[in-house]
Amino acid sequence: MHVISVGIVGGTGYTGVELLRLLLRHPQARVDVLTSRTEAGKRVADMFPSLRGHTELEFSDLDLDRLKQCDVVFFATPHGVAMQHAQELIDADTKVIDLAADFRLQNLAEFEKWYGMQHSCPTVLTESVYGLTELNREKIKNARVIGNPGCYPTTVQLGLAPLLKNDTTLINTQNIIIDAKSGVSGAGRKASLGMIYSENADNFKAYGVAGHRHHPEIVEALENISGQKGQFNQILFVPHLVPMIRGMLSTIYVDLTAQGQKLDIQALYEDFYKNERFVDVMPANSSPETRSVRGANELRIALYRLQENKLIILVAQDNLVKGAAGQAIQNMNLMFNFDEAAGLECIGLLP
Amino acid sequence: MHVISVGIVGGTGYTGVELLRLLLRHPQARVDVLTSRTEAGKRVADMFPSLRGHTELEFSDLDLDRLKQCDVVFFATPHGVAMQHAQELIDADTKVIDLAADFRLQNLAEFEKWYGMQHSCPTVLTESVYGLTELNREKIKNARVIGNPGCYPTTVQLGLAPLLKNDTTLINTQNIIIDAKSGVSGAGRKASLGMIYSENADNFKAYGVAGHRHHPEIVEALENISGQKGQFNQILFVPHLVPMIRGMLSTIYVDLTAQGQKLDIQALYEDFYKNERFVDVMPANSSPETRSVRGANELRIALYRLQENKLIILVAQDNLVKGAAGQAIQNMNLMFNFDEAAGLECIGLLP
Amino acid sequence: MHVISVGIVGGTGYTGVELLRLLLRHPQARVDVLTSRTEAGKRVADMFPSLRGHTELEFSDLDLDRLKQCDVVFFATPHGVAMQHAQELIDADTKVIDLAADFRLQNLAEFEKWYGMQHSCPTVLTESVYGLTELNREKIKNARVIGNPGCYPTTVQLGLAPLLKNDTTLINTQNIIIDAKSGVSGAGRKASLGMIYSENADNFKAYGVAGHRHHPEIVEALENISGQKGQFNQILFVPHLVPMIRGMLSTIYVDLTAQGQKLDIQALYEDFYKNERFVDVMPANSSPETRSVRGANELRIALYRLQENKLIILVAQDNLVKGAAGQAIQNMNLMFNFDEAAGLECIGLLP
Amino acid sequence: MHVISVGIVGGTGYTGVELLRLLLRHPQARVDVLTSRTEAGKRVADMFPSLRGHTELEFSDLDLDRLKQCDVVFFATPHGVAMQHAQELIDADTKVIDLAADFRLQNLAEFEKWYGMQHSCPTVLTESVYGLTELNREKIKNARVIGNPGCYPTTVQLGLAPLLKNDTTLINTQNIIIDAKSGVSGAGRKASLGMIYSENADNFKAYGVAGHRHHPEIVEALENISGQKGQFNQILFVPHLVPMIRGMLSTIYVDLTAQGQKLDIQALYEDFYKNERFVDVMPANSSPETRSVRGANELRIALYRLQENKLIILVAQDNLVKGAAGQAIQNMNLMFNFDEAAGLECIGLLP
Repeated sequence: MHVISVGIVGGTGYTGVELLRLLLRHPQARVDVLTSRTEAGKRVADMFPSLRGHTELEFSDLDLDRLKQCDVVFFATPHGVAMQHAQELIDADTKVIDLAADFRLQNLAEFEKWYGMQHSCPTVLTESVYGLTELNREKIKNARVIGNPGCYPTTVQLGLAPLLKNDTTLINTQNIIIDAKSGVSGAGRKASLGMIYSENADNFKAYGVAGHRHHPEIVEALENISGQKGQFNQILFVPHLVPMIRGMLSTIYVDLTAQGQKLDIQALYEDFYKNERFVDVMPANSSPETRSVRGANELRIALYRLQENKLIILVAQDNLVKGAAGQAIQNMNLMFNFDEAAGLECIGLLP
Repeated sequence: MHVISVGIVGGTGYTGVELLRLLLRHPQARVDVLTSRTEAGKRVADMFPSLRGHTELEFSDLDLDRLKQCDVVFFATPHGVAMQHAQELIDADTKVIDLAADFRLQNLAEFEKWYGMQHSCPTVLTESVYGLTELNREKIKNARVIGNPGCYPTTVQLGLAPLLKNDTTLINTQNIIIDAKSGVSGAGRKASLGMIYSENADNFKAYGVAGHRHHPEIVEALENISGQKGQFNQILFVPHLVPMIRGMLSTIYVDLTAQGQKLDIQALYEDFYKNERFVDVMPANSSPETRSVRGANELRIALYRLQENKLIILVAQDNLVKGAAGQAIQNMNLMFNFDEAAGLECIGLLP
Repeated sequence: MHVISVGIVGGTGYTGVELLRLLLRHPQARVDVLTSRTEAGKRVADMFPSLRGHTELEFSDLDLDRLKQCDVVFFATPHGVAMQHAQELIDADTKVIDLAADFRLQNLAEFEKWYGMQHSCPTVLTESVYGLTELNREKIKNARVIGNPGCYPTTVQLGLAPLLKNDTTLINTQNIIIDAKSGVSGAGRKASLGMIYSENADNFKAYGVAGHRHHPEIVEALENISGQKGQFNQILFVPHLVPMIRGMLSTIYVDLTAQGQKLDIQALYEDFYKNERFVDVMPANSSPETRSVRGANELRIALYRLQENKLIILVAQDNLVKGAAGQAIQNMNLMFNFDEAAGLECIGLLP
Repeated sequence: MHVISVGIVGGTGYTGVELLRLLLRHPQARVDVLTSRTEAGKRVADMFPSLRGHTELEFSDLDLDRLKQCDVVFFATPHGVAMQHAQELIDADTKVIDLAADFRLQNLAEFEKWYGMQHSCPTVLTESVYGLTELNREKIKNARVIGNPGCYPTTVQLGLAPLLKNDTTLINTQNIIIDAKSGVSGAGRKASLGMIYSENADNFKAYGVAGHRHHPEIVEALENISGQKGQFNQILFVPHLVPMIRGMLSTIYVDLTAQGQKLDIQALYEDFYKNERFVDVMPANSSPETRSVRGANELRIALYRLQENKLIILVAQDNLVKGAAGQAIQNMNLMFNFDEAAGLECIGLLP
C-alpha cells in the first residue's frame, strides 16, 4: 500500500492536533514533519496528552527544505503563512493544503479587506482550487494547492448546493438568511480574554453580526456554484457562539420561487447527494444534532418546507472535522488517488 | 408597608422555585401556601436546598379554601390546571396569575389545537389580561386574572413592539423570521430521556421546527400589538436548544418597508423604552449575552441595520425570570399598586 | 481474516451504543444481533443518529436461539439479565461478556445486599472470570463468561495493582482513600429527574457517600490482587458527579509503609505496565486529564510522592471505554485470540 | 440609615465585579471609586453588561488621595498591591479589606516562598486581622486591615473548626486529607491558554498537586484555630478543576481519635454553628451541591461518619461569594457595625 509523507506547519492549534488525530490513524499517510514557531524540540504528545502512546513526533522549526521532501504539507497556521511558502513547495512537487484563508478567496480586494493583508502570491492563488470536496472533486484531484473552506461556508455551500447548482431560478437569491451557531473551538487555541471558560460557559450570544470573514467566502462560493455573479449580495449571515467545544449548526432560510415550489425538495437533495459518503440527507422533519457528528467527518442536512414558499435547511457538522481537518484529509485522499474515506471512517462520539 | 398573602400552586417545577427565590425576598409579599400534588408534607427547602435557611414552608395539597384566603395565587403548573380554579378564586377576590398557557390565547380553537384540551372556562379567559407587562400595563393593573406570557413570545413582542405598535407600515409583516435559542431549563423539571444531561451537554440542535406552541401565541400577540389581524401568518419561528441552564436569545430578521427605511430605528427603540426599567436598548452594534441577565428580570435588545432594508434584532433574557417568574411578579406588583420593581432589582450573576 | 459474529443484548443504553461505535469499526467482528425489550423493529441509527451511514441494524426481541448462533454475546443490560441466559449460551458455545454486575462479585451475600436480588446461576458465576484485562489476561483468554469490571473499580485496581500485586507490605491497606469523580454518562441513559441537564450542569456534588455498589467490588478485587483477605475493609470510597458527559478521575491516597518508602514508586509503576498498550504511566508530577482519553480505550496514571510516606495516585479514563465497552472488547479480543488492540486504537478526542 | 463610602481597587476581575454586584444593592454602602490600571475612563457597565442600568460608575486611575476619602477600600487586585497602600490608607482612617493574599499569612517566609515577593509592610501585616468571619468576629469588628481568606482555606477552616477549636485531641492532625474541587472562575479573569473554554469544558483534572499557595494558609489557619503549632504539616491538599463557572466543594477526610469517637459529631457541628446565618450544617448524610449556594454567601456542611473512626466532611460554597467577595462584605458589615447580613441575603440561583 502506497504511503505518503506528510508535513504539518503549525501543529499547536486545534486544527493541527485534529489533523494529527486523524492522520496518525490514516493507513496511507505518515506524518514526518510537524512545525511550530514556539515549541520546536517539544514532543507534541507533551502538549496534547491525547497523543501519548500514538506518536513520538517532536515539533521542529519551519525548515522549507525538509518540507519539500514531503508529498503534501498542511498549513494549520494563521492566515498569511501558507502563501509565503506555497510557490516554493509546489515547485518541489510538494502539494499544499491550506486550512487558513490564503487560498479561499479569488477576489484579492475582498481578501485584503477582510484579512488585513495583501496577498503575496496571486499566481498561486489563481491555480489553487477551493477545497469543498463534494462540489469540486475533479479539480481537487489534479490540484497542487488547495484552499480548504472555512467551517461556516462548508455548511452553507453543502446546504444550498442542490438548489443553486448552475441555477438561480429556484430560490430568491436576495433573501437568504443564514443563522449559524458554532462551538467555541472554532475560535482556535489562543490566550484571549474573550475565550476563557468563565466568559463562555452557560452563555449564548451572537458575534460578528456587522461583518464576519466568512461572509465574502460564502458569497463568492455561491456565485461559483450557481454560475451567477452579483446575486448574493444581500445574504444575511449571523454567527452565534454556543457553549460547547465542537459542533456547528447552520439554520438557513430561503424563499422558493414559483419554479422552486414545484419541486420535491427532499427528493432533490437526496438525489444530489446519493453517492456522497460524508453528506447525509436526513428524512424530512429530522433534527440534525451536532453531537451526532462529534469527531466524525460527516455533515447532516434536514429540510423543512413550512409554507408553500418557505424552506428551512438545517446543516450540522463538527467544525474541526468536516469543517476543517477532516475535509482537508478528504481532499488529500483525492489528490493522491486514495479511497476518499481513508482515515475518515470513525463514528461520531455519542454521547 | 402593605404585605400581601401569596399562594403558589405547583411549587416543584423550575418556575415554582424561581417564584420562591424572588418572592421570599420581596418586601411586600409573604408566601403562605405552596401546593404540590406529589410532595405534600415535605419541606420545600428539602427539595431545593438553595432555599435552606430562607423558608420553613411545606408543600400542601391543593386546598381551594386555603388558597382563597390569599390575595393572589400563582399557578406554576402544567397547562390546564389554572383554568379549573380561576373562577372560584376570583369570586373570592383572590387574583390569579397563571404561568402556564391557560390564559394566553384568546383564540379557543388555537388553544385546543396546540394544547390538546378544551378550555374549561372561556368566560374567565375573556376577562383575563395577557401579562406582557410593558405592553399591557394599564389593563394589568386592574386585572383579576393574568395569562403570563410564554418565554419566547416575550422576546418577540418586546423585540418587535416599537416597530409594530398600532402600525404595520414599517416592516414587511409577511417576512419575519425568528431564530430563537433557549437554555434547557425552558423545558421544565421533569424526568424525560430527552432532557438528561448526557443528551444535551456539548450539543446543539433545533427542535419543534414544524410547529411549536409559542407560534400561535406570537401571532396573536403581534396582531394585538399592531391592531391588524391576518398579517402575521407567514412568520417563521425556529427554536433551538442551547447547552446552558438559563438564558434565551432570539435573533429576529425583518425587512423594513420604504417607510420604515426612513426612520432612525435605534432612536425609535430607545424612545419607545425610555421609561422602562427592565428593557434595555443597548447601543447600536452591541451583542446582548444571556449571561448579562442571568437571574435578573431584564431583557436586552440590540439592533443591526445591515442593508438599507434589513434589520436584525437581538433580544436576550433569562427565560425563568423576565420570561416567566420575574414578569409574573412584575405583574403582581402592578396589580397591587406596588413599585413595579419591588423584589426584582437583583443584578445578573456574571460570571 | 477471521470474523466473528457478535450479539448485543440491550442496545439502547450508553454502553450499548458505545459497543456499537467500536465494534462497527472492528476488523474482525460483525454485529449480527442487537436486542431491546422496547425498541424491537426500530433501526438503531434512528435512535442514535451518530450511527447513520454506518449500520442498517435493527433492534430485535431477545431471541435466545438467534443469540446462540453468535460467537459472543455482550450484555449491556441492567443488572440481573445476563445471569438468566448465560448458562444456555455457553452450553451452545457462545461466549458471554456481561457489562453489568452479574459476574463481578464472587461473594453472593454481597451481591444480594448491594443489588437487591438473588443470584440465579451461581455455578456460572463460579467459572466466570473477572475481566480486568491487564490483571487477569491469561484467565480471560480461556474464559467462557466474563464479568466486565465496574468503571470506578477499574481505576482503583489499575491505580493500585503495582503496589498490591501479591503483596500487602508496601502500603497501609487500612488507610486507602479513593476520592473518585465521574462524568454523568456513568449513570446511564434513563429518564430520571436527578439526571436531567438543569440538575447537573454547572454543579458539583458527592453522592453515594454512605455506600456505593462499587465499594464491595473494589474490596473483593483488591483482595484478589493482593492475595490477602480482610485487609481492605476500611477503604473509603467517595464518588462525585462532574458536569461533563464522559470521563472519570480517581484520586487515591495511600500511606507507604517503611518498606514501601524504600522503593522508587515511579519506576515500579513504569515497570509494571511497561508492556501494556492501554495503561499509560505518565512522568512524575503529570496531571492526567479526562479529555486526554475521551473516546479512547486508555487509562492514564500519575504519581505524586508528597511526603516520605504519602503517595497520591491519579487515574483517568473514559468511563464508557476503558471503564466499560472498550475493556469489554479488549476482553473479547483476548478470548478470540485477536490482537488485543483490534478495534481499540482510536485516539482521544481533544479538544 | 448610615451609608458609607466604598472604594474598590482593581475592578476588572471576577472578585471586583462580584463586589459590585453585591455592593450596588447594599443598603448602607455606596461605591464611589473604582480603579483599574488599564480601563480608566471606561464605564464598568460596558465591561460587565450585567451592571447596565445599575450603575454609571467609571473606572479611574488609582488616586490615593481620592481613596482616602472612602470609609473602606477593597483590594480586588493581584497579590502585592494592597500592601503598597495599606499604611497610607489606615493613616487616613480608611479601612482596608484585601481580597488577595497580602494579609493572609503572618509567616513572612512562607509568603515570600509562595508568592515570590517580599512583604513590603510587615508592620501593617502584624496588626491586620485574618477575615474568616465566623472564627475571628470580635477581632474583625475592630480591625483596620483585613486579609480576606482564600477560597479553599475558607472551606477547610469552617469544615474543621468545630473539631479543632482550641483542641487537637479529637482528630489525628497528621492525617487530614483535603480533596478540593473548584469551578474555573477561581482562576480569575485573565487571558491564559490554560483557561480557555475548549481546554476546560467537558474535562476534569487535578492541578497544583505538588504544591498550592493555599496550603500554607490552611496550615497557619488550623494552627491558629487549634492553638497548636507544628501539628498540621502532613496535611494533604489536592485541588481539582471542575468544568463549571462557580462553586467549590471540599471533601475532607479525618481520623477521629478515641476521644473524638465518643462525640456526637453531628451535634457538635450543629451546636458550633447554631447562631451562624451563613453556615448551614445539613442533616446527616446530606449532599451539599455547589448549585445550592450559587451566588449566595452561604457555606453548607454535611458529615458522614463511615466507620468508628473515619469522618468525611463535605463543604460547599460559591468560591466568589463566601469564598471571596461575600465574605469580604460580611467583614465590612462587622467593621462598620452593620447587620452582618446586610446586602448578603440573596438566595442561590437554582437551577
